Amino acid sequence: MNEDAIVAKLRRQAPLIGDDCAIVPAPANQDLLFTTDFSIENVHFTSKSSALEIGYRAVARSLSDIAAMGGKPLYCLVSLAIAPWTDEHWITSFYRGINRLLRRHQTELAGGDISHARQLVCDVMICGSVGKGRALLRSGAKPGDIIYVSGPLGGWRHKPVIVPRLDIGRRLIGKATACMDISDGLALDLHRLCLASGVAAEIDSVPLLKRATVAQALHDGEDYELLFTAPPRRRVPGIPIGAITKGNPGTLRYRGAKLAPHGYDHLQHRH
Amino acid sequence: MNEDAIVAKLRRQAPLIGDDCAIVPAPANQDLLFTTDFSIENVHFTSKSSALEIGYRAVARSLSDIAAMGGKPLYCLVSLAIAPWTDEHWITSFYRGINRLLRRHQTELAGGDISHARQLVCDVMICGSVGKGRALLRSGAKPGDIIYVSGPLGGWRHKPVIVPRLDIGRRLIGKATACMDISDGLALDLHRLCLASGVAAEIDSVPLLKRATVAQALHDGEDYELLFTAPPRRRVPGIPIGAITKGNPGTLRYRGAKLAPHGYDHLQHRH
Repeated sequence: MNEDAIVAKLRRQAPLIGDDCAIVPAPANQDLLFTTDFSIENVHFTSKSSALEIGYRAVARSLSDIAAMGGKPLYCLVSLAIAPWTDEHWITSFYRGINRLLRRHQTELAGGDISHARQLVCDVMICGSVGKGRALLRSGAKPGDIIYVSGPLGGWRHKPVIVPRLDIGRRLIGKATACMDISDGLALDLHRLCLASGVAAEIDSVPLLKRATVAQALHDGEDYELLFTAPPRRRVPGIPIGAITKGNPGTLRYRGAKLAPHGYDHLQHRH
Repeated sequence: MNEDAIVAKLRRQAPLIGDDCAIVPAPANQDLLFTTDFSIENVHFTSKSSALEIGYRAVARSLSDIAAMGGKPLYCLVSLAIAPWTDEHWITSFYRGINRLLRRHQTELAGGDISHARQLVCDVMICGSVGKGRALLRSGAKPGDIIYVSGPLGGWRHKPVIVPRLDIGRRLIGKATACMDISDGLALDLHRLCLASGVAAEIDSVPLLKRATVAQALHDGEDYELLFTAPPRRRVPGIPIGAITKGNPGTLRYRGAKLAPHGYDHLQHRH
């Protein structure tokens, strides 16, 4: 298939593709959210994953970022650099995985780019919206706030399918003081939230996925649950795991002992 | 440098980077335009190009797409997968090239992703805006319309620097019946415009860059001039090259002889 043939095929699945840009209406009285996430062969996935899983997961990671801000996803761009081993069947399944999740969240595939590389590279951009000035940030946690997660943790070994927590994110608007998603492990991501808020944190207990260890939940990453904070006694849809404290910004303690903010660093792990 | 260090550095240059998503105000009473373009090592550039040129060019290609719709660029996301050979100096120069062009067009670097791959991959997304229902499309050309280009052509051999025609694009709103940018050569791109409009075209003459041949102007691509149509006697800022005709949609003639829509196909040219 040449470029026009692939684009023609995608166009039938995504009616907005075809002109130089996708054109969509701007939502009224909203802030826009933009997020973009790479999915790269041998970095974010291996050839053991199916095309459908790779497409699904690529979109799920970006949707999780929208969820972390309390946003609603609207439009998606998918840029795909196919590898020498990629065939038409693979591409079809890949877009099936993408469309499955986008449809579930009423998000439109609006465009993208097609090219080729030695290893397969996909970049998924999602544009979402949130009420003006209402987005959940990482930077609002206060000493005394309770820390919550949206579900049990355990890292990528125990969490094969990402479920973007869009509903929970939207319910946290006006309630959570800070929020982010856990992509690189609870320890590293909570460290980032604390740095952004200028606070420290104390973890008492971590809800675990079946067969997962505490170390995996703290450091493995790719849980894609929401990590958020709220004042005590405020009703929020989460599992409490500890409290925000005063102290050196970014300092973490787990059951009284100092906790190193180790997690998954995408640049340090070169396959 | 690890991921947080690189992100921290980029954040100083691009204040919106840092949370899970970039947050920006949605423009009122506008349509949004989205475009995304890969710049991949050994596909879109070779190691002979400087980091500054690669960054500049990556952004210029996406800005040219916004120009082709008559839009105003607003926000930019840059996803960068660094290669084993990439060092800190390269990354700094690359973002300098990006920022130089973005500043010139009042466009904000709002976010992106960082990862790594065996060959360097960059994906630039630009979000722009245009008055509701006013975007220039490829699909409005009518028989009798004059065909214009925004400047002399010659292909990538003769056009080392891309100048996105944003001013000209905006001046064409309400005047051009169809518009696109020339990325893959006049012949292939005019063929696409004709297919989208359901018309044919007759080229009389092509304005040439110094030392360029007609064949290069027709087929080499990467001129990034605007190609547009308008009814006769309408005043537009372009050089007339021929006329839209009735006939089999997509059919091209150059000085009476049939012209094959050959051009640059990014998927057929694997380096």
